[in-house]
Amino acid sequence: MTAPLITMLTDFGQGSPYVAAMKGVIWSLNPAVNIVDLTHTVPPQDIRQGAIALAETSRWFPPETIHVAVVDPGVGSARRLVYARFGSQQYLAPDNGLLGRLAAAGPPSTIRHLTERAWWREDVSATFHGRDILAPVAAHLSLGTPPESLGPPVAQLVPLAWPEVTMAARRIRGEVVSIDSFGNLVTNIGADQLAGVPTGEQLEILCDEHETRGLFRAYSDQPEMTLIALIGSSGYLELAIVGDSAAIMLGVKPGVAVTLSWP
Amino acid sequence: MTAPLITMLTDFGQGSPYVAAMKGVIWSLNPAVNIVDLTHTVPPQDIRQGAIALAETSRWFPPETIHVAVVDPGVGSARRLVYARFGSQQYLAPDNGLLGRLAAAGPPSTIRHLTERAWWREDVSATFHGRDILAPVAAHLSLGTPPESLGPPVAQLVPLAWPEVTMAARRIRGEVVSIDSFGNLVTNIGADQLAGVPTGEQLEILCDEHETRGLFRAYSDQPEMTLIALIGSSGYLELAIVGDSAAIMLGVKPGVAVTLSWP
Amino acid sequence: MTAPLITMLTDFGQGSPYVAAMKGVIWSLNPAVNIVDLTHTVPPQDIRQGAIALAETSRWFPPETIHVAVVDPGVGSARRLVYARFGSQQYLAPDNGLLGRLAAAGPPSTIRHLTERAWWREDVSATFHGRDILAPVAAHLSLGTPPESLGPPVAQLVPLAWPEVTMAARRIRGEVVSIDSFGNLVTNIGADQLAGVPTGEQLEILCDEHETRGLFRAYSDQPEMTLIALIGSSGYLELAIVGDSAAIMLGVKPGVAVTLSWP
Repeated sequence: MTAPLITMLTDFGQGSPYVAAMKGVIWSLNPAVNIVDLTHTVPPQDIRQGAIALAETSRWFPPETIHVAVVDPGVGSARRLVYARFGSQQYLAPDNGLLGRLAAAGPPSTIRHLTERAWWREDVSATFHGRDILAPVAAHLSLGTPPESLGPPVAQLVPLAWPEVTMAARRIRGEVVSIDSFGNLVTNIGADQLAGVPTGEQLEILCDEHETRGLFRAYSDQPEMTLIALIGSSGYLELAIVGDSAAIMLGVKPGVAVTLSWP
Repeated sequence: MTAPLITMLTDFGQGSPYVAAMKGVIWSLNPAVNIVDLTHTVPPQDIRQGAIALAETSRWFPPETIHVAVVDPGVGSARRLVYARFGSQQYLAPDNGLLGRLAAAGPPSTIRHLTERAWWREDVSATFHGRDILAPVAAHLSLGTPPESLGPPVAQLVPLAWPEVTMAARRIRGEVVSIDSFGNLVTNIGADQLAGVPTGEQLEILCDEHETRGLFRAYSDQPEMTLIALIGSSGYLELAIVGDSAAIMLGVKPGVAVTLSWP
Repeated sequence: MTAPLITMLTDFGQGSPYVAAMKGVIWSLNPAVNIVDLTHTVPPQDIRQGAIALAETSRWFPPETIHVAVVDPGVGSARRLVYARFGSQQYLAPDNGLLGRLAAAGPPSTIRHLTERAWWREDVSATFHGRDILAPVAAHLSLGTPPESLGPPVAQLVPLAWPEVTMAARRIRGEVVSIDSFGNLVTNIGADQLAGVPTGEQLEILCDEHETRGLFRAYSDQPEMTLIALIGSSGYLELAIVGDSAAIMLGVKPGVAVTLSWP
């Protein structure tokens, strides 16, 4: 039998003592668990970026992994904390849209509202529910506490606002939704939405006022400093400058429009 | 039986190869140990920030955890390396004030001067005692070496300079001592020192020339961009700007005075 | 029996979701493995800095550790992915010079070209071979797959361009090759190359136009803000400003010449 696995995703910043405190609380309750960081560099209080990173990374983990996610501008307010199961993966998070990219791929099979104080720390602060509620609940889950005992069922998660891709004859319009650590621009246009679109020179791609033509397979397919478009490793259309940061070179931020057109 | 736990806190910077070297040394001696990062983003050579982070985070860990702390501007000089036990937790660190916030909460029950070279690496560099002394000593401790065999007892730790809170009739004066990753300003004024202080509108709080009134329970109790005061998750008075960084918005650094007064 | 150990070194940036995805892939195949970060802050696509960090850190790990290294500007191109064994340590990396600092200390005893798709993910993207090839191969290795079954032998690794140290009568010339997180300037001049060189006042050391004299043992041997030279913890000549960052104070970057001369 292998140790249960708990992951953590927060906006606390890399090296935050708050992350260490949560790990200590988990290990104090279950010293046999493995804890791994998904990321702690979600921009502070940016629920959308947290939701993207959570959906992109958690799907690679073994079945029954418990993912604890904390991007929680509403801590101390009336927002719910929830347990949710998507496929074989389990999540503990504020119900504020942070699970929204997971939900976009299919609804959770279970949602529970975390109300049962028996699994919480005795003293619950008003400002740090990650340490005082989510961490101990994750530890108890990893010890075998059934999700049903965490609190009552919830019908539906709070949705995450998400820019739609508009598709017309010979034209697709989406936008940049995130920027990776290489400065590549990841859009909301999925590989499946590009079925039937020509991939050669006749395809014009505009990102803000910057133009490129055609779809490539890999960054190394074009010379350095070229702007190229390709399907990135998470299955979405991506714009990159070979060997450099497109985000810095082009001054592009999430929200900028990306338009594909062809004759 | 669960694996012993060793934590690391340093000022080496996130992703430092020096951290990886220390982990390699520990695992080479005890491959069964769990190693967890408290933080490596203590500002270089800032003993006070290291001491605060160490005290705030280590207290959450299971009994008998071994905490290795390296903020060591005096490496290679005559400063001692020590083992100290505070309550159920064990520490290995330079004796330069880094254990000072732990000591402020109550003296250690044991202090030993690390002099026994049997537990060190054979070649000890003059510049990296973390790797050559603290890491192997931690590994040996985790394997069952008793603290008494590390070296002779020490009567007292080097104290950490710490700003005092001054309390007068209707007036308390402290200062900002650290800034968290959200830009919240953490002061040296503890929740216990606020007993009997009114928490409503009549309480005036000045941080540098910035004013706020009353104490709140959670960040979400006030609208975005409001400066508020509250008791933070580590039990100290904290100033925050809702939804933004108070440190950046107000240009406040550790050392800035914070004054509470009431009629 | 202790768990096998896999380390990761990448240029993905601290907190990158790509790192988490690789860990998820590894754990999905071998949940019993320990995974540890060497560093993820190698400057993007900087093979030389990756090669230095890999050689400096991996040598401290227990025998049979599997080191996965990804600094891979040529992903998707014809560059090979390889398995290599240096001494008791095992490596998986693109064959682009990233193993070059290890090779400089002695040739690998085994090199295999990773061609056997049985150990890869079924869907291999063109842009993320770390997740789709190296991670699953590492997991299979940790489960006991023999290196010979990964692919055919390779005669020689791609070399890493490396600045030579020139030695003349009463004069040694090298250069700064990396900068650590304290801003210390690490050169390519090894301790062994300084045999017979005087270490006192008569030794003049020039770094760009900045001069210092003599070799010291530890940073603390001189007053704050002094430029000093010493043999750093990895065995190379290093220039440091006591208590501050030499890189920032002097504006020095890798590539700057360092000259030693004596009468």
